[in-house]
Amino acid sequence: MALTRTPGVRLADSASEAYRYPLLIKQLLHTPLATSPDEQIVYRDRHRYRYSEFAERLPRLGGALHRLGVDPGSTVAVMDWDSHRFLECYFAIPMSGAVLQTVNTRLAPEQIRFTLEDSGAQTLLFHRDFLPLVESLRPHLPGVRTFVILDDEATPDRPAFVAAAYEELLAEPAAGFEFGEFDENAVATTFHTTGTTGRPKAVVFTHRQIVLHTLAGIGSLASATHGQSFRRGGVYMPLTPMFHVHAWGMPYIATLLGVKQVYPGRYQPEELLALRAREGVTYSHCVPTVLRMVLSTAKQLGVDLGGWTITIGGSALPLGLAREALDAGIDVHAGYGMSETGPVLTVARLDGTESDPEERIRRRCLAGRPIPLVELRIADESMRIQPRDGVSTGEVIVRAPWLTPGYAGDPAASEQLWRGGYLHTQDVGAILPTGELRISDRLKDVIKSGGEWISSLQLEEIISHVPDVAEAAVVGEADPLWGERPHAHVVPRGRTDAERLAESVRAAVGAEVERGVLPKYAIPERVTITAALPKTSVGKIDKRRLREGPG
Amino acid sequence: MALTRTPGVRLADSASEAYRYPLLIKQLLHTPLATSPDEQIVYRDRHRYRYSEFAERLPRLGGALHRLGVDPGSTVAVMDWDSHRFLECYFAIPMSGAVLQTVNTRLAPEQIRFTLEDSGAQTLLFHRDFLPLVESLRPHLPGVRTFVILDDEATPDRPAFVAAAYEELLAEPAAGFEFGEFDENAVATTFHTTGTTGRPKAVVFTHRQIVLHTLAGIGSLASATHGQSFRRGGVYMPLTPMFHVHAWGMPYIATLLGVKQVYPGRYQPEELLALRAREGVTYSHCVPTVLRMVLSTAKQLGVDLGGWTITIGGSALPLGLAREALDAGIDVHAGYGMSETGPVLTVARLDGTESDPEERIRRRCLAGRPIPLVELRIADESMRIQPRDGVSTGEVIVRAPWLTPGYAGDPAASEQLWRGGYLHTQDVGAILPTGELRISDRLKDVIKSGGEWISSLQLEEIISHVPDVAEAAVVGEADPLWGERPHAHVVPRGRTDAERLAESVRAAVGAEVERGVLPKYAIPERVTITAALPKTSVGKIDKRRLREGPG
Repeated sequence: MALTRTPGVRLADSASEAYRYPLLIKQLLHTPLATSPDEQIVYRDRHRYRYSEFAERLPRLGGALHRLGVDPGSTVAVMDWDSHRFLECYFAIPMSGAVLQTVNTRLAPEQIRFTLEDSGAQTLLFHRDFLPLVESLRPHLPGVRTFVILDDEATPDRPAFVAAAYEELLAEPAAGFEFGEFDENAVATTFHTTGTTGRPKAVVFTHRQIVLHTLAGIGSLASATHGQSFRRGGVYMPLTPMFHVHAWGMPYIATLLGVKQVYPGRYQPEELLALRAREGVTYSHCVPTVLRMVLSTAKQLGVDLGGWTITIGGSALPLGLAREALDAGIDVHAGYGMSETGPVLTVARLDGTESDPEERIRRRCLAGRPIPLVELRIADESMRIQPRDGVSTGEVIVRAPWLTPGYAGDPAASEQLWRGGYLHTQDVGAILPTGELRISDRLKDVIKSGGEWISSLQLEEIISHVPDVAEAAVVGEADPLWGERPHAHVVPRGRTDAERLAESVRAAVGAEVERGVLPKYAIPERVTITAALPKTSVGKIDKRRLREGPG
Repeated sequence: MALTRTPGVRLADSASEAYRYPLLIKQLLHTPLATSPDEQIVYRDRHRYRYSEFAERLPRLGGALHRLGVDPGSTVAVMDWDSHRFLECYFAIPMSGAVLQTVNTRLAPEQIRFTLEDSGAQTLLFHRDFLPLVESLRPHLPGVRTFVILDDEATPDRPAFVAAAYEELLAEPAAGFEFGEFDENAVATTFHTTGTTGRPKAVVFTHRQIVLHTLAGIGSLASATHGQSFRRGGVYMPLTPMFHVHAWGMPYIATLLGVKQVYPGRYQPEELLALRAREGVTYSHCVPTVLRMVLSTAKQLGVDLGGWTITIGGSALPLGLAREALDAGIDVHAGYGMSETGPVLTVARLDGTESDPEERIRRRCLAGRPIPLVELRIADESMRIQPRDGVSTGEVIVRAPWLTPGYAGDPAASEQLWRGGYLHTQDVGAILPTGELRISDRLKDVIKSGGEWISSLQLEEIISHVPDVAEAAVVGEADPLWGERPHAHVVPRGRTDAERLAESVRAAVGAEVERGVLPKYAIPERVTITAALPKTSVGKIDKRRLREGPG
C-alpha cells in the first residue's frame, strides 16, 4: 500500500540553512560520544578501549575502505565472530554510504558462496579463522575484488590475495576523511534469511529503519516497570551472532545508551561465562538453544547467574526452560521477531500486578507486547482482522517503520511477503486482551488433522514437561485417513527406556485430550526417541529435516 | 544546510504493496491501544475514562470537525486548561491533516488576538471560562469562522455565534470517518513563542518531528539508571500548560507509554496537590515558579510530596530550590529546551556514581545530557566549535530531528535562527567532559563589564544563598566607565532591613571575588529590594521589564 498524499496538508516553510536532519546511523553516535566517551568496549580478554577511541577508528576505517575502492552504494561483506571490529563495521560501512553484508558463517560453504555472490559484495573483510574457507571459495567468487583480513594478534604473514590487514589500515590516520550525508532511505545493511525452506533470501534495511528500530527498541526495553529491562548503567554482551539481524539490533541500542559493551568472539560456553562474570554483564539475548547451553555449563561449573537479564527470541521460550533459567537467577523473558522484521516486534514483560507465580512465568514466555510504532494484527486466510480476545487465531501480520521492503532480487517472494499491505510473518497466534501476543505455531508447522489445526508448539510444550524429556519437536506426517498425524521426536534426559518414554509422551498428550484441551487425533501416532534434534545454522530446530529425515 | 544526496547510495527495491510507514501522530497510538486499553485518563474530579474510549472519541472529533468545514491544511485553534479534551485535540486535529494551534491564554487580549490572526485559524475551540474574552475578541477576528465551546458540565445555553458544543459533537458516532495517511512532513502544530523580546513568533512542528521527539524523549526519560525517570507503571500529570510547546511533548510520551494520565484543569495549588495525592501521580514537569508554589502550598497544608519525580525547565533550577524540593521528598532534576526546539534537548540525571551529596544536587541542577539524536555544541561568535572541557563557553547551538525549521511568515528571523546550519539557542553555556550542559546565561542577559562577560545567572545563584533572600534577578545597567554594571533585584524572605540585606548581597558576591571566581566589577553597583519580580506569561522572570522598569 503506497503512501497516500492527502492533498492540501500544510508543509512547513524552512529557513534556507535549516538542517534537514536525516535519520542516518551516524546520528546515533551524538549522545554516547558526548555523555559516555570513557565507557568501555571489550573484546574477550584481548582488547579493551573507550567509546572515544572507537569513534576515532570509524573515519579511519571509512577512509581506508575508500582508498580500497569502496564507493557509496557498493557492498562490503564481513565474516567475523562477535567483536569490536564487527561493531566498527556496523557503523563505518553504512556511514560511508556503502552497504554492510553480514555473512552467516554457520551456513554450508556453498551457501556462503551463494550469499556472497548474491549480495554483490566487491570487498570481503574476514577473520583469520575463516582463511581456509575463504581460500577455498575464492575461485568461485569472481565479484569479490578486495580481501581484508582481521587478526586478533599482530600476524605479519598474509596470503598474496589479501589486500590489507584491518589493524594496519586503521593504524593510518583518517587524513581528512569525513562521513557525508545522504538520503536516509539509503540501504545500510543486507543479509540472508536462514529460513528452513528454500534458498537464502536477502533482506534489506535502510539507515532510517535502523535508527527507528534503535529508538523504539530502547523505548520498549528501557521503559519496563521493573526487571526485564536494559538501561543506562547496564553492561551488554550479545549471545546472538552479529551476522544474524544485526544481533537483533542490540549493538546499536547499547551504543545509543552509551553502556559498556562486551563482545565474546566465538561462542565457547566456559569462556562466555568467565567473561560475563569478569565484566559484570547484566544484559544479553539469545535463542533457547544457547540459553540451554549456558545453563548446563553454569551447572557443571557451579557458576552463579544472578543479575543477568536475558531476552529469548528466534523460537518460543518453553515454560520448563524459563523455570530453569529463573531458578539459576536469570531474569529471563521472551521477545518476538524475525529477519524480515529487523527484527524486534514484541517483548514480554511483567507488570508487577501478577500475584500468581505461575502466571508470572507464563507471561515471561509469551511473545509479549508490541514495541512502539508496531501495528500488530491477527488475520484469517482472507485477511480479515481478528479480535484481540486471546481465542481467535490467525496469521500474525505487521506494519512497523523498520520492516524489510522486500527480498533483494526476488520480486515474487517480495509481493507474497507484503500482500495486502501488511508483512506476513507466517506465524500463527492470538492476541490477548492485554495486548500480549501468543504464538501458537508456524503456519507451515501447523498439523492439519481431522479437519482441525493442531499447534505443534502446544504439543511440544506438553511433551517438554514429561519427566526425562530434554527436548521435543513435533511435525505433521501425511496420513491417508486424517490428512496429517503428529509425529513426536524426543531427546531423553540421560538414559531412559525408549518404549516407556514414548508411552509417557502419549499419556501426557492424552491427559490434555481428557481435559478437552486437544482433539484426540492430537496424540502422536509415532514417537521417535533420538539423541539430538537437527538444528539450523542459528540454532533453531530444523523441522524441514525432521519431516524429510528417516525419523 | 541542505541534505546532500551522495550520488550512488543504494536504494531498496520495494514490494508494490509494501507499507511505506510514515511517521504520523496516529502511529503513536498502536502500542498503547493494544497494551493499555483499560488504563485511565482523568480530568480533575470531573471525568475519568479509558484509553479505549479516548481512542473511540478521536474519529468522532475528526468527523465532527470535518462536517464543520475543517479540511486538511486548515488551522484549528484551541483555548483550554489542561484537560482530556485538549489531549484529544493533540491527536485528532493533526491526525485529520489539520494544524493544531495552541493558544497561550496567559497573554494579553491583544496578543491573543494577534496570535489567532497570525495562525490563520478558521476554527476556534474554547473553554467556557474564556467566553467573555472570546466575545470581546470576536469582532477583531475576521478569519475565525467557526466557534466550538468546551464545557465541563452539560450547559444547554450558548451564544448564537457558537456553532456547536464539543460534547454534543462527540456524542454523534464517527459515521465512517477514518484518519487518512499523508506526508509525515505535514505541519501538525503551531504556537507562538512567549519570548521576552519582540512580538510573538509562530513556531511550526511536523508529524515526523513530534513522533521522533516522543521516541527520543522516552529513550532518555525511561533509560535513567535509577530515579529521575518516567516509565511504564508511572502516573503522569502536567504542570506546564498544554498551550506551551505541547506541554513539553510529555502528553505524547505518556500516551505512547500507555500510563495513567491526570489532567488538572486550571492550576489551583490546593486542588493540584489533592488531585496528585488522590490519583497517585508519580511524574510531572514545570517551571521553577510553579515548583515554588507547589512547595509552599504543601508546607502550609502539611502535605507529603514523596514519590514524585518532577522535571524542571523553562529557567534554570536554582540549587536552593532543588534542596527545598529534595527535602520535601521530590526527585527533582532539570531539563533544557525552548519553544523553538520542540522542546526537549537535554535532561539532567544522576549516574549513581556520585558519592558527594553536594555533587549530586549540583548535577540535578545542570541542564543535563543531550537526549538521543541531539547534536549539541558550544560555538563562539564566529561559529567555531568549542571543546567539551567545562571551561570554554559560547552559544549553545543544536541539531535534532524535531527543531522548528523556522518562524512561520518571518523569513528574516528564520534565517537568523538557523545561520550556519545550526539552530541558535541564544543561551550561553559550557559542556562538561561528562557531556553535561551547564547554561551560564542568556546571550542577551550576559553583563558585559570591564571587557569581560559576567553571567547574570551565576550572580543570581550566589545571591539566592544569602539568608533572607527568597528570589533574585540581576540585569546589566549601562555604565560610562565599565560598559555595564550588575544591578541586583532581590525579593526578601519575610520582613528584613533593606539596607542590611543589600549589604549581605554585596558581601556574598564580594566573597566570590576574594576567592578569585569573579572579577571585582561583578559586585552589584545597585541592589534593589522589591516585593516581587515581574514574570512573563509562562512564569519566567521578565528581565526586559527589569531593565526597562523604574527599578
